[in-house]
Amino acid sequence: MSELRKCPITDRWVIISPTRGRRPSDFEAVSAEKTDNAKCPFCEGNESKTPAEIIAWRKPNTLPNTPGWQVRIIPNKFPALGIEGEVNRRGIGIFDMMSGVGAHEVIIETPRHNESLADMTEADIDKVLWAYKHRIQDLQKDSRFRYILVFKNYGKAAGASLEHPHSQLIATPITPRYVKLELSNSRAYFQEKERCIFCDLMRQELSSGERIVYENELFVAFAPFASRFPFETWILPRRHHSDFQGTPDDERMQLAGCLKDVLTRLKVTLNDPPYNYVVHTAPNSITRPGKPDYWGTIEYDYHWHIEIIPRLTKMAGFEWGSGLYINPTSPEEAAKYLRESI
Amino acid sequence: MSELRKCPITDRWVIISPTRGRRPSDFEAVSAEKTDNAKCPFCEGNESKTPAEIIAWRKPNTLPNTPGWQVRIIPNKFPALGIEGEVNRRGIGIFDMMSGVGAHEVIIETPRHNESLADMTEADIDKVLWAYKHRIQDLQKDSRFRYILVFKNYGKAAGASLEHPHSQLIATPITPRYVKLELSNSRAYFQEKERCIFCDLMRQELSSGERIVYENELFVAFAPFASRFPFETWILPRRHHSDFQGTPDDERMQLAGCLKDVLTRLKVTLNDPPYNYVVHTAPNSITRPGKPDYWGTIEYDYHWHIEIIPRLTKMAGFEWGSGLYINPTSPEEAAKYLRESI
Repeated sequence: MSELRKCPITDRWVIISPTRGRRPSDFEAVSAEKTDNAKCPFCEGNESKTPAEIIAWRKPNTLPNTPGWQVRIIPNKFPALGIEGEVNRRGIGIFDMMSGVGAHEVIIETPRHNESLADMTEADIDKVLWAYKHRIQDLQKDSRFRYILVFKNYGKAAGASLEHPHSQLIATPITPRYVKLELSNSRAYFQEKERCIFCDLMRQELSSGERIVYENELFVAFAPFASRFPFETWILPRRHHSDFQGTPDDERMQLAGCLKDVLTRLKVTLNDPPYNYVVHTAPNSITRPGKPDYWGTIEYDYHWHIEIIPRLTKMAGFEWGSGLYINPTSPEEAAKYLRESI
Repeated sequence: MSELRKCPITDRWVIISPTRGRRPSDFEAVSAEKTDNAKCPFCEGNESKTPAEIIAWRKPNTLPNTPGWQVRIIPNKFPALGIEGEVNRRGIGIFDMMSGVGAHEVIIETPRHNESLADMTEADIDKVLWAYKHRIQDLQKDSRFRYILVFKNYGKAAGASLEHPHSQLIATPITPRYVKLELSNSRAYFQEKERCIFCDLMRQELSSGERIVYENELFVAFAPFASRFPFETWILPRRHHSDFQGTPDDERMQLAGCLKDVLTRLKVTLNDPPYNYVVHTAPNSITRPGKPDYWGTIEYDYHWHIEIIPRLTKMAGFEWGSGLYINPTSPEEAAKYLRESI
């Protein structure tokens, strides 16, 4: 059974998940793991090799857990957090902990093993984004969960343990620390100025233009001014909106186009690099006034976005020890390379 | 010229260091880099291949930048921050930045290429710790610097670009975010309880014993309750002291013994894993009442320590996006393996 534990010194929560448990000798074996395509549990035809699907985007008249799907969502076979049970908070002396309750799902993005997100059609990427929306909206109804984080690991160096294109989501009984930091800072900014800090930031980026990677009618992609990593790229909706899942269906296709464009530019410029992305959206408690962890005016002060991080450099002792990143490529240069790539 | 930039959304500072600049095509080449031992600039006899030494622990009657040293400190050839110039703070619209002024030094731990820290004698490890102390005390006199972080990258996966055993330090014009978090939380705790949170934590660890890895008369090593990583291990002095560099010379040998013991246990248990460690000590401004970033009662509320992180798992999208770590090995198990290893 997993457990959430809080470091009393830094207030950092950690998921201790021995269900994914590892003895010392297991670590090397895991890092050498390779996918045998024929046996890939995410490929069409191998549906019986995964846990039963939660939902899928399917051709008419096809049955669950059989071929005929375009996007398929399943529970993670080795979940970091377990779906059963109540959130039980407790303490031992100086330590705080809670039971490791949550959801951990896999979004299989395509039935085809070798088709990466950058290569998919906008219409197919839109179905992946539809899956994100559907799962967030469904899991938000579970009052045990405070946040649902959608993320993608592409390539072994980015933490993907299976090659077949997939994203994941984890629903947690706490609002994760980085999201909380964004929430509290953007709230403080709004309270002072009655303006969204993300809107202000985007306006400044659009007016200078030097860090813009791509823009269409509804979305903007740019290299952030204080990029932690070379070629880090953020995607923001131009219109202020606090939650990703609220994106109207007819606007989502433009997001698909923006995502495809940015991923293609990264692929071309950096020779198909490993990368991670995360969707930062408002926490679930947006709709729960009076409940713990309610974020009040979050609708006005937060602005959802996607952060894409190519994994080109290694985190070393300095970054771990300081939280201060050393980025060898300026975002202005990175944006220029990406703009000129296609 | 490097630059420090602050993310307006998260208040995270980043070092943009194009002097270590990389074009897209450079990233792969760097990760494939290998050390040719004969040409290793850190080996005895190759002193002319490095920048001139700052100081060294030398045999009597040997000259600087010649053989005869045991520990040798040099400026980093590719510094993340430059030593020249003033700290110039400025803004552009919503953005804050300052000039990338700092120090970046390399501590070559031994003249012998293949002798890792775990294999060295306690007396030789003590000389490495002496070097840390000497450099911190010297750089603290420079009022441009707020913090000096000593760290070590061991193994390619931990970010070491040269095999020859070495540590590094970076002096920064800001107090890094993770240190600041520890400082402000431990101060809040002290103000409430008039007790050091680290002392309380250590007392609880010693009384339960289940996460203790090693202890001697003056130092304790344990797996922290909310370990972010499998086999993460912290070393704390039993006696309350806010700054590492204040460790009396006659107590440092026990620290050398503790460090050697813990690194040996990690080496045996995990088959010589890559690792990072960082020394968390009080910030420079401890001695500058009335100056910006002065930490007041830090002598009482902060407690220096070393954090050791074996690099066994990969950071993936979830960790990047949430700041919430998933650790597959409980610290109780990890400590048990380490205790029983030798």
